[in-house]
Amino acid sequence: MFETDLTRALKIRYPIFQAPMAGGVSTPELVEAVSNAGGLGNLGGGYLTPEQLRSEIQKIKQRTDQPFGVNLFVPEQSEDSEEAIYRMTDYLNKYRIKLGTAQNPSLMKFSESFEEQLQVVLEERVPVFSFTFGVPSQDVIQTMKQHGIFIIGTATTVDEAKQLEAAGADAIVAQGSEAGGHRGTFMKDPSHALIGTMAIVPQIVDHVSIPVIAAGGIMDGRGLVASLTLGAAAVQMGTAFLACPESGAHETYNQKILSSNEDSTEITRAYSGRASRGIQTKFMIDMHQYPGTIPTYPIQNAMTRDIRQAAAKANDPEYMSLWAGQGLRLAGDQPAASIVKQTIDQASVLVRKFSFI
Amino acid sequence: MFETDLTRALKIRYPIFQAPMAGGVSTPELVEAVSNAGGLGNLGGGYLTPEQLRSEIQKIKQRTDQPFGVNLFVPEQSEDSEEAIYRMTDYLNKYRIKLGTAQNPSLMKFSESFEEQLQVVLEERVPVFSFTFGVPSQDVIQTMKQHGIFIIGTATTVDEAKQLEAAGADAIVAQGSEAGGHRGTFMKDPSHALIGTMAIVPQIVDHVSIPVIAAGGIMDGRGLVASLTLGAAAVQMGTAFLACPESGAHETYNQKILSSNEDSTEITRAYSGRASRGIQTKFMIDMHQYPGTIPTYPIQNAMTRDIRQAAAKANDPEYMSLWAGQGLRLAGDQPAASIVKQTIDQASVLVRKFSFI
Repeated sequence: MFETDLTRALKIRYPIFQAPMAGGVSTPELVEAVSNAGGLGNLGGGYLTPEQLRSEIQKIKQRTDQPFGVNLFVPEQSEDSEEAIYRMTDYLNKYRIKLGTAQNPSLMKFSESFEEQLQVVLEERVPVFSFTFGVPSQDVIQTMKQHGIFIIGTATTVDEAKQLEAAGADAIVAQGSEAGGHRGTFMKDPSHALIGTMAIVPQIVDHVSIPVIAAGGIMDGRGLVASLTLGAAAVQMGTAFLACPESGAHETYNQKILSSNEDSTEITRAYSGRASRGIQTKFMIDMHQYPGTIPTYPIQNAMTRDIRQAAAKANDPEYMSLWAGQGLRLAGDQPAASIVKQTIDQASVLVRKFSFI
Repeated sequence: MFETDLTRALKIRYPIFQAPMAGGVSTPELVEAVSNAGGLGNLGGGYLTPEQLRSEIQKIKQRTDQPFGVNLFVPEQSEDSEEAIYRMTDYLNKYRIKLGTAQNPSLMKFSESFEEQLQVVLEERVPVFSFTFGVPSQDVIQTMKQHGIFIIGTATTVDEAKQLEAAGADAIVAQGSEAGGHRGTFMKDPSHALIGTMAIVPQIVDHVSIPVIAAGGIMDGRGLVASLTLGAAAVQMGTAFLACPESGAHETYNQKILSSNEDSTEITRAYSGRASRGIQTKFMIDMHQYPGTIPTYPIQNAMTRDIRQAAAKANDPEYMSLWAGQGLRLAGDQPAASIVKQTIDQASVLVRKFSFI
């Protein structure tokens, strides 16, 4: 039931991907639970050191013999002036004072080495490799292919999808504007690539010949069948799994997920420098008034890390990044395997209903 | 086929509404064509004088004995300072000079009388009355009901949908962020109510007991079946009908519709003072730099009218309002009846496919 070209290619039972959620949310436990339940668990590895990445991948492999994926961030050129960085560092000190953490922390690096992360993915023979924020070099893509790794890119427009197909991707995540977390946009200003899932999925499907995975606002069996109807070969669900027991989301974050609504989120650059959808916080609102230019990713991300960590320690959601999509009223706290099962059960009932129309 | 509670209540054959598109786009010919093809044609009457409204309704009644709808704008309080209005009038003169039209035109009124428009709807016994931008008074709603008129409100959030149901609406249009034209938001800042169709439809369906009509990014049979799957009782399609021969859209507007993409639109207040989605124009881009506060609807709308009209006369799309949704790549120029038929045919094929899953 619900077998598609993609489920056959990946040898998974159901066309349900758990979205890679970096920053510790998509734990090995969550990835394992979804893959063992018949979906595809995905580890968000973008922020992990090569050593951490290897350790998490090995944990997953110990826990399941089912396919799973690892997602990494394609590095971007950031061109921020020293003055802009200095000004932001200084501005952020007021939050550090508020949260009782050290001012002007020294940053050893802005992000992990993509090359070293890739090496781990290759060496560990990860079954599925997905990436966001751009297109890796042909060298990287061809090496992955030679190792038999299935490659998935992320697109927010038709042009991005076409570029990913041309570069050799085996499948494409079509990220609708409803989606929580970072926008994957890489060919234009993300604020002009906020296309809703209902509109972006069929338009991408019409312009590529590889399978499309629908993402954004999909929370249950209704969203699964709707997405397959639009031409998708699978769905990717993030917010639906955020508050389940296997998720690594902080308890304060969990409480916000379970008490927020469809209109609680906004797109912000305040936390990471890259457009991202999350539950509105005081930090986001305050940063609307920031008099300068917010540095780009990964610089802003590195500069706010200590603030987010201090806020988490203090259980203060207003300075944490609470990434979430627009399906929030449908988020629950069941175990991941139950979410997969309920989604499939609800989808089966819907399809049977349609067969009598 | 595709019969729902709503199609039975309205005595229409198919759950396809043609969106009311004010400003002369939803002509009596378009409304008639859609209603005669088995859908529900809707006249966008918001900008019409009571005399024009009556004349258009009578034309529709002469052309079809099928049900049709009329949409009006619920009046809003605008609280703009005289200075803001003066400043905008002055600023807009540069476009008037460019387009060769008179500067500082005198405005007799900002909008038509809602009360007089309502009187026409009642007297003409319009079968379906829909409204946007708010909730009419209980007096208005009860009078409509006593006359046997079916009442449809427009919601962009769950809270708005609940308020409309409590006020006595018989059905609700759930307007996703993909939708072209004016945002119907009335309980909060429209920029925080841009919920994608995939997310907003099931969440509204879960919180009201009246039928929900999905709107935003729905362009064909895929969108129809997807919306029904999400729990909608019908879909409302606007952009899909924009360029058909019965539409009143200007030829220059038509050409832009047929050559634009999913990422060609943005939300702007520049033309009318109310957040609205349209194909990006030079006027929108230029108004990003406007140093003051753009007056609210209907004042800004009245103040830019002569500019839009002069631009249309000059076939210059860059100063016209080109309202359109995010499904633009799927817009065609077939007759309205063909669009209805193709949508139903494609939906039927999809449903048959599912019955074998």
